[in-house]
Amino acid sequence: MTHQDETIVTAALLVIGDEILSGRTKDKNIGTIADHCTMIGVRLREVRVVADVEDEIVAAVNDLRRRYTYLFTTGGIGPTHDDITADSIAKAFGVPIDHHPEVKEIMLAHFARRGVEATPARMRMARIPHGATIVPNKVSIAPGFKLDNVIVMAGIPTVMQVMLDAVTPELKTGRKMLAVTIELLKPEGEIANPLEQSQKAFADVSMGSYPFVRDGRLYGTELVLRSTDPQRLEAAEADLRARLAGAGLLG
Amino acid sequence: MTHQDETIVTAALLVIGDEILSGRTKDKNIGTIADHCTMIGVRLREVRVVADVEDEIVAAVNDLRRRYTYLFTTGGIGPTHDDITADSIAKAFGVPIDHHPEVKEIMLAHFARRGVEATPARMRMARIPHGATIVPNKVSIAPGFKLDNVIVMAGIPTVMQVMLDAVTPELKTGRKMLAVTIELLKPEGEIANPLEQSQKAFADVSMGSYPFVRDGRLYGTELVLRSTDPQRLEAAEADLRARLAGAGLLG
Repeated sequence: MTHQDETIVTAALLVIGDEILSGRTKDKNIGTIADHCTMIGVRLREVRVVADVEDEIVAAVNDLRRRYTYLFTTGGIGPTHDDITADSIAKAFGVPIDHHPEVKEIMLAHFARRGVEATPARMRMARIPHGATIVPNKVSIAPGFKLDNVIVMAGIPTVMQVMLDAVTPELKTGRKMLAVTIELLKPEGEIANPLEQSQKAFADVSMGSYPFVRDGRLYGTELVLRSTDPQRLEAAEADLRARLAGAGLLG
Repeated sequence: MTHQDETIVTAALLVIGDEILSGRTKDKNIGTIADHCTMIGVRLREVRVVADVEDEIVAAVNDLRRRYTYLFTTGGIGPTHDDITADSIAKAFGVPIDHHPEVKEIMLAHFARRGVEATPARMRMARIPHGATIVPNKVSIAPGFKLDNVIVMAGIPTVMQVMLDAVTPELKTGRKMLAVTIELLKPEGEIANPLEQSQKAFADVSMGSYPFVRDGRLYGTELVLRSTDPQRLEAAEADLRARLAGAGLLG
């Protein structure tokens, strides 16, 4: 991982698939990729979910890849006719797409070992846009790829995970976002005032307030402070705790 | 619910919140709203997740509300400084925002009954853009709202759910999408060919192929056929089953 400690590295995620929009499949990749980005110091700034429609994929890819350091995509790289992600990425970049010799070889060897027929549908998964590098897939062989700043991964969470792990060493990462959580058994409405005062005093530390439910009812509020600077984070936490204590809201 | 059986009614969903993008909170509303839309005959066509940043919310709202019959939003309507959805919606529409007299009254009465102080932060939740109608909230009182075709709901899933149920009778709905699933204990790569043939023969019936994992490994494939026309759906299913049987892939 190339640490560029002073840089802010941003990312967007494009989830591709009718099955998410119909409700048939419940997406799990958004949460996994969000956690992963936070962990490695990349700010996930936007997520989109679009249908298996080429024009919509192309438009979203071209919009998002220009606005963020990285664009991750999940879904649509399998062997069936509704898997149109690789072609859509090629179209978005205006590059040709063809069977990748090295991927073809890996897949043919894998199929031969397992006695699986190398049908045209299966070999379709070896089609990679020109100029892309391969993101290996230890689980089910057919790889993802990285073209410029766009990282194309599978939709199946276990396969997505190995691709994400495989590509991570190649990514630039920025300063890690640090977080502190203060949990209060008080409703948001009582905390809003001291929280806003602290936020004004520490404009560089992001402060969020998240009510939480327990036993089916609103139970309390988590305050989350975030900064890349540990000293500012500590100072902001002390300031907020003092204000909360002053208002009789701590403990 | 106004049934307009010949119309296609579309929707987008905008999820608003830093906590989803950081991974701190795992979104559940996308799946719930996707299921709900499918159930009532609304096609969810796009989802976006954006941060608590006014410009980004305004841009996404104005883009999405113009492209779909409805835009649902979740998140950012609580009492704290990071809850900026109502103001962003007002800005997107270029309308003023102020305390809504009826909402104010409902909230003051609720707070009085429960002995809760009507702090300025809490009363902030009574601020509603001009021209909006109220989407009642039986769980925690502070309501959502509907402005033109934009439906603004809470981020907490239980609260979102009551708002979604409350607004549903007001929505236009289209023909319901019907679905048939065929589960096969075969990998996608073997099914791709008959599936593509069926899709070509029934271009009006959407056919998707979804590998599924069981016991941690790829196990089989679900084929999902979708159409608003029960007769076409039945014919397409028969066609696909015949092709699968012909290729020795059924049972």
